[in-house]
Amino acid sequence: MAKRFSVDEYADGILAGNRMVLSRAITLVESTLPTDQHLAQQVLDRVLPHAGRSVRVGITGVPGVGKSTFIEALGLELLRQGKRLAVLAVDPTSQRSGGSILGDKTRMNQLAAQEQAYIRPSPAGRSLGGVTRSTREAMILCEAAGHDVLFIETVGVGQSETAVHGMVDFFLLLMLAGAGDELQGIKKGIMEMADAVTITKADGQNETAAKLARREYQNALHLFPLAPSGWNPVVTTSSALTGAGVAEVWQVVEQYVEQTRQSGYFQRRRQEQNLHWLYEAIRQGLEEQFYAKASVQQQLPALRQQVLEGSKSAFGAAAELLGL
Amino acid sequence: MAKRFSVDEYADGILAGNRMVLSRAITLVESTLPTDQHLAQQVLDRVLPHAGRSVRVGITGVPGVGKSTFIEALGLELLRQGKRLAVLAVDPTSQRSGGSILGDKTRMNQLAAQEQAYIRPSPAGRSLGGVTRSTREAMILCEAAGHDVLFIETVGVGQSETAVHGMVDFFLLLMLAGAGDELQGIKKGIMEMADAVTITKADGQNETAAKLARREYQNALHLFPLAPSGWNPVVTTSSALTGAGVAEVWQVVEQYVEQTRQSGYFQRRRQEQNLHWLYEAIRQGLEEQFYAKASVQQQLPALRQQVLEGSKSAFGAAAELLGL
Repeated sequence: MAKRFSVDEYADGILAGNRMVLSRAITLVESTLPTDQHLAQQVLDRVLPHAGRSVRVGITGVPGVGKSTFIEALGLELLRQGKRLAVLAVDPTSQRSGGSILGDKTRMNQLAAQEQAYIRPSPAGRSLGGVTRSTREAMILCEAAGHDVLFIETVGVGQSETAVHGMVDFFLLLMLAGAGDELQGIKKGIMEMADAVTITKADGQNETAAKLARREYQNALHLFPLAPSGWNPVVTTSSALTGAGVAEVWQVVEQYVEQTRQSGYFQRRRQEQNLHWLYEAIRQGLEEQFYAKASVQQQLPALRQQVLEGSKSAFGAAAELLGL
Repeated sequence: MAKRFSVDEYADGILAGNRMVLSRAITLVESTLPTDQHLAQQVLDRVLPHAGRSVRVGITGVPGVGKSTFIEALGLELLRQGKRLAVLAVDPTSQRSGGSILGDKTRMNQLAAQEQAYIRPSPAGRSLGGVTRSTREAMILCEAAGHDVLFIETVGVGQSETAVHGMVDFFLLLMLAGAGDELQGIKKGIMEMADAVTITKADGQNETAAKLARREYQNALHLFPLAPSGWNPVVTTSSALTGAGVAEVWQVVEQYVEQTRQSGYFQRRRQEQNLHWLYEAIRQGLEEQFYAKASVQQQLPALRQQVLEGSKSAFGAAAELLGL
């Protein structure tokens, strides 16, 4: 890793919108070295008053749905509207897949070439807890650097969607038109987190199927209860190829933001998310300290086996370990 | 609270199917006194080899769906089949509502009068973590006492459904026929946890609406991906009043148990649940110890406020607290 800056150098560079300093600072929050973590917290505390002024959008969908091309099309549209965009990725499996998600920036080469867009792949080789933590912190840094829209991309096959849902204002689900089994591969519960669904690749021969799928999803979403936001999820069709329906997705996001800002839900949700992350960070810290203890590491395997076999109760085994 | 027995007295009484001893032992696992908890763990370890031989069914539905009358009708049917049934309740809100859920046994007076049925209200005045912990342990005691079917009832309005889903083999959702807004009040995500849905009160003038609702739910469930169990959720109609469709619900449960036992999913899921509860118990214990510390109680309110306002990052505040 490149040499460290001072707290002031990081903070001033970020606030000036210096991309190189921003990248180095994100590398710092991703680092697991205690000295780096300490430095990162100081940088975060410095820039925090300048963060929080973006719209945070989570975007998910199964592989093959055309996530990169959609993000590129929507991102270029936002730049045309004069916005500054940061795209971050959350993929705790990237240690196995070799970092496919956003790992190859050429997937979005038009967007990546723009001065007003900042694209960052998922940190590699980290657990979900680690990835979500550093992503949360990278979001603060990107906002302080002046990005007014954040996209948080996730792969749509695991637990990461729930974590991303807990750190964004708006959750967008990309779907393919198909024959009833289009939800295969999407984890249960993801559809209900969506504030909007867009059926991608709605062009050429696929257009009729996309419109049918749109109606089907809209009906299915009506079966779900009204979200605490008071917002009715919207289903649209879009084509990154023709550009049809792409700008409309952003109009939906803006309507959502306006409605929930007026109702106060937007601000309240962010406060709740902040608190949630505090308790989450405490939990993570407690567990890290606990499982790192030599006595726990020594006793856990045997107790785990007894609990698995049902020869010891879970709470009894936990009580033994907690007494260590 | 009545006087304590010895470990042997508790264990022998439970294994002999003595209801009074069973009740006292459940009171013991519900106690928050350290001496009671220690005694409870010894009793649990003694009877654990005799537990695990029941079918565990979670039952939920919004207030007004007719849960008590349905449980009574299905329970009486099971007793006719020669089974022994225990009905436990999980309601962390009972501290506020005054323990309405199963608190009034007269709600199920026919079932409660039967020798082969054991009905136990939700422990009052406990957090969700506390309720789920003592329910998990009460399940072990009821199984050791010879009950071969357990119903775990939950109110259907909060977080408790997910906890109950994590401690049962089969999850049954009761629904009312209605006009599209029938899911109002059911927390998002509950429908996808269901292995079966039964539309209740399918009698008289309501029968046609119930059949329509059944088809609607069956279609909606087809939109969800196949569960890891490989089981396709079944939607039925039933009437506790006429008895129509009640025995059929149990046939569905039995089909599920047979299919998942053959595939090995049933056993595997129980092992996973055991492990889940081990890590959950560790987490609960760590948090209890942490939040009980005087230094944490002193610092937390101010840090919490700073995080809420966004003037301190969640992970920075957590790091401060963890260093105490």
